[in-house]
This record gives sequence, structure tokens and C-alpha cells, in this order.
Amino acid sequence: MEYRKIKDEDNDGGTLSNDIENLRGIGFSGVASVSNVPPREQAKWKRKTVVTVALTFLTSSQAILIVWSKRAGKYEYSVTTANFLVETLKCALSLAALARIWKSEGVTEDNRLSTTLDEVIVYPIPALLYLVKNLLQYYIFAYVDAPGYQILKNLNIISTGVLYRIILKKKLSDIQWAAFILLCAGCTTAQLNSRSDHVLQTSLPGWIMAIVMALLSGFAGVYTEAIIKKRPSRNINVQNFWLYIFGMAFNAIAILIQDFDAVMNKGFFHGYSIITTLMILNHALSGIAVSMVMKYADNIVKVYSTSVAMLLTAVVSVFLFGFNLTLAFFLGATVVSVSVYLHSAGKLQR
Amino acid sequence: MEYRKIKDEDNDGGTLSNDIENLRGIGFSGVASVSNVPPREQAKWKRKTVVTVALTFLTSSQAILIVWSKRAGKYEYSVTTANFLVETLKCALSLAALARIWKSEGVTEDNRLSTTLDEVIVYPIPALLYLVKNLLQYYIFAYVDAPGYQILKNLNIISTGVLYRIILKKKLSDIQWAAFILLCAGCTTAQLNSRSDHVLQTSLPGWIMAIVMALLSGFAGVYTEAIIKKRPSRNINVQNFWLYIFGMAFNAIAILIQDFDAVMNKGFFHGYSIITTLMILNHALSGIAVSMVMKYADNIVKVYSTSVAMLLTAVVSVFLFGFNLTLAFFLGATVVSVSVYLHSAGKLQR
Repeated sequence: MEYRKIKDEDNDGGTLSNDIENLRGIGFSGVASVSNVPPREQAKWKRKTVVTVALTFLTSSQAILIVWSKRAGKYEYSVTTANFLVETLKCALSLAALARIWKSEGVTEDNRLSTTLDEVIVYPIPALLYLVKNLLQYYIFAYVDAPGYQILKNLNIISTGVLYRIILKKKLSDIQWAAFILLCAGCTTAQLNSRSDHVLQTSLPGWIMAIVMALLSGFAGVYTEAIIKKRPSRNINVQNFWLYIFGMAFNAIAILIQDFDAVMNKGFFHGYSIITTLMILNHALSGIAVSMVMKYADNIVKVYSTSVAMLLTAVVSVFLFGFNLTLAFFLGATVVSVSVYLHSAGKLQR
Repeated sequence: MEYRKIKDEDNDGGTLSNDIENLRGIGFSGVASVSNVPPREQAKWKRKTVVTVALTFLTSSQAILIVWSKRAGKYEYSVTTANFLVETLKCALSLAALARIWKSEGVTEDNRLSTTLDEVIVYPIPALLYLVKNLLQYYIFAYVDAPGYQILKNLNIISTGVLYRIILKKKLSDIQWAAFILLCAGCTTAQLNSRSDHVLQTSLPGWIMAIVMALLSGFAGVYTEAIIKKRPSRNINVQNFWLYIFGMAFNAIAILIQDFDAVMNKGFFHGYSIITTLMILNHALSGIAVSMVMKYADNIVKVYSTSVAMLLTAVVSVFLFGFNLTLAFFLGATVVSVSVYLHSAGKLQR
């Protein structure tokens, strides 16, 4: 095909002009490192990678802990108290990190805990959104069974992408949008089982609730990123403290609404085990990793990270619990892998 | 993110220089049509589209005829005699088309039927490859069941892509390769059913046979394209005539090997019905459409065309036969659609 040859030549031309662009870049910044990337950019990239990998491993070990706790047959503790403890632990860890920073760097404008109403007024919003979503979760099971809900949760991927575009006004290239649709399709494919088709019989109210929940979850994620990114120089631990303090407050309300009687009769820690403690610890660390990803990367990276974690979990479960991988899993994993590749290839091609 | 903004500006710069490229293009060719595409290119594109659409519809109606004939419960005719008749009909249609051309244009160097040994010697090869593949097909069922074979047939997509690259030395962009992997994964996903996981238990000889068959089928397709494209000015009906005459010969051999007794005892046309006749007619027309796609487009277009036909068939079967579409089908169809988009987007981005 002749036109392809012509395009190839164009491409060579493009490489040349890119080289010129790179030279110009060096001229502008005055920095000439070995790999042509300024050290500050390298440090940023490194930090972004570390938090992303941490999130991936914490999320997948989280899912493994859930499977383990179900196998152990002990799942009788109250979920709302556990959520409250997760928020409390995150708050404590943020304060501990801040204490260390104050010792080494002193209290500055960026790391002081005290704040203005203007800064703090937006922090309750994500916690409120998650509370509403978690309360809705109890009602959706009237319309969808648990495996069906797992499938429908993949709508979060699409809602996060759309809200990321609308609220944060950040652009994804066409290839990256295509990659995002593939991510959603691939994750769903990997989770297919013989009963998955039931989800197609979901009634209209079930669909509406699933979509509303996906929008709430996506909005909470994107809004958190907006809050954290609004003040780039502000210390992440201060930002986390304020996020989590409201998380504690709203989860305390959830205990009152849902589990007040149970907590009063059986006690706050009824049914807690070592696994429960590990799960709370893991959730707290994952939560902090999510905040870090929001600060140093974005919601898109978060979605990719948790999707890859889902695949990792399945592979690890083969060895830990003797699970079988299905053909659907291999196909889904292939599609997700291609999606990850396209997300980065789509960036370069712009 | 700042780097994205910078990329956006780069992109605007790129658009400007592309505009300049376009202006230059007009300068060179001296043609300034409304859409900036020379009429000859437009005609080529039109012909390519027509043959591709024809192949898609013929392939999907072919699959529908097969389902229909199975429903009617009449599948007792000998497949080898039917294949022989398909080749004979294609040969006759090519001759009829040539006769018309000779009447209007006269016999020229490009449309004369007589040929040289140098030209004709390669024509038996695709027919021979298909014969070997069809004979192997009888043995693979010792290792794989019929639904499993349907799944494994998707390996053809990958083998066609790889052989297209190696033999025809044509390049696909990285995005287009990613799209091709997605096409294979998407088609397989769309065909998933509750018994598909059996295919993972296929034994090593089964896998080897499946891969050999995929390579034979891919090689036959790519080799046919090489033969037809080697002489671009040669009339396609002459090229088809020589392809199909050897197809007739090798299918005659297949009758002798597999169905000699049945044909001798029951007769050549035993078990033929109206549906059988329609199927033979459809196969003949699809075969000619495949040749046309090889001449005016390529094997990649053929693979996309037949994959989209598979999806069309499933949708049409919902209305014709009351089939149910599965969640896996919707996911596979989504992945295939994104793949089609990426194949063309990948072309533009080079």
C-alpha cells in the first residue's frame, strides 16, 4: 500500500522535529541529564510510581483478606464500626506523619493543621457522598444479587472517566478514551461466570440505582482529587487529616443509623478477629495510598491501579486458595493489559 | 497536569504543520477536489468499501443459512461434493464476467485467459493448503469438541496478522497490533458460553493441531493476496478463474478420499435441498467477495469484515431464531467495536 510508505516517511520527519523539540527543551530548562529528563520530573515520576504500586498491592491484598475472612467463616462484626475504625486509624497515621514533619521542618504555612473555613468547607463533601453510597448499597440488593452487583460496579470506571473530564476539565486523547472503555469491558469480562447473565435481567430501578451509585462513587473520587490538587503546596497529611476527620464523623452517623442496637447489645468490638484487625489495617493503608495517588497522580491512575489489582488478586488466589482461572478471565486480562498499553501509547501519540 | 497542557499546545502546532502538508499535497498533484482527495483515490476507496460491505453481509447470511439448515434438520448431503460445486460455480461466474468484459473491451494482455507457467504455477498452492486444512479438521475433533473448535478458530486472526507482516512485509502500527489482539480477544469473548472453559483442558496435540490449522488458514489467505497483488493490472476474474480451477481439482481429490463410497452408492446430489442450494450459491458469492477484498483491500480488512459479520449474525439471529444475547456477547462486541475504531485511528496517528 503506497499511502503507508508515504506515512512512514512523514513519521521519520516527525522524529527529526521531535529531536529538535527535545533540544529546545534542554535549552529552555538549562538542565541536561543523561536521559534528557530533568531530575525534578524524574523524582515526580518515581513518587507517582511508588504510590501507584503501593495502591495496587494494598488493593489486591485487601481482596485476598476478604476471601480469607469469608473462608474462615467469620464475618459477623459490624461493618460500620470497622469503617469508623479505618477512618480513625487513617487520621492517627496522618497526625503521626505530621508530628514527624513538624519536628524535622518546623510548622510552616503548608503543614500547619489549623485552617480557614474557605479551605475546610469542601472536605466533608466526599465523606458525605460515600456515606450516601454506602447506605444505598443496602437497598440495591433488593434488585440485584451480589455477583450481579460486582459486575455493575464496573460502571464506576466509566463514571470516573466522564466526571474526571467534566469536573477536573482534563482531557484524555481519543485513544485513551478507547482504552478506558476497554478497561471497563475487560474487567467485566474477567469477572464473568455462569450466573453473570442474570445481570441483564436487572429491572429499571436496579439499573438506575447502580448508575446513581457509580456516579456518587465517581464524583466522590474526582471531588477528592479536586480538593487535594486545589492547594498543590499544602502538605498531603494535613489534607488527609481533614478528609478523615469528616470520614470519622459520617461513619459515626452510619453506626447510629444502622448498627446502634447491635453495638449497644453486643458491644463495639463484637465478632472482631485477627483477620478483622488485618483488614482494618489494610483498608487504612489503602485509603492513604488512594489519597497519595490523588495528590501525585490522578483518578485515572487510581482506576487502572485497582483494576490491575483485581487481576493480580485472581492470579494470587489460584496459588493461595486453589481457585481456577476461567477462559473469560484470560480474555479479560488480555483486554485490560492492552488497555494499560493504549493508555500510555495514547499519551505519547498526542 | 501541566505536561498535558504542553502536549496540547504541541498538538496545535502539529495541526498547523499538517495543514501545510495538505497544501503542499495539492501543489504536487495539481488536483484540488472539494474534499482534497483525488477522484482516483475516491474511486478506489469506494470500491474497497463496496467489496468489504458485500463480504460482511455474505458472511453473516452464510452463518444464518447454516443455523437455518441445522434447524431444518437436513445436513445429510456430502460436504465435499458441495465444496466442489462451490468451486465450479465460482469458476463459471468468473468466466461469465470475463465473457462480458471481452465483449465490451476486447481481449487484452490483462484480461486474456491464457497464461504462462511462471504466472500459473503458484495458483494451486492456496487450494492445496485449504485441502490439507480441511482434512486436518476431521482429526482435530478427536482432541477438541465443536464449541471448543469454534473458540480455537479465533487463532486464525493472530496467525493472519503475523503472516501478513512476515510474508507481505506490510507494517501495522503499534496501535493497529493492539487492535488486532483486541479483535481476537473480543471475538472469543462474544462466543463464550458455559462450556467454553473446556477449551483450557485441550491437550498438547490438540493445541498443536489448532495452531497448525490456524497457520495453514492464515498462510492460504496471505498467499492468495500475494498472488493476486503480484500482478495489479491483471483482471481479477482471470486470477479468480485460475484459483478456482485448482480449487475444483483439489476438491475432486477430497471427494475421492473422503466420500467416494457415499457418492457411488447414494449419488452425487443425495440429501441436497433448497437450503443446500442457497448455501452453495452463498458460499460461491462470498468466495468471490473474498478474492475482491484481497485484490482491492487486504487480509486485515477481510479479518475485520468476517469478525463484524459474526457479530451481525448473532444480532440477526435474535430476531430470526429468538436467540438470547449474553453479557459476554455485549462485552465482546464492545471490544471488537473499539478494535475497529483503533485500527483506523492507529492508521491516522502514524
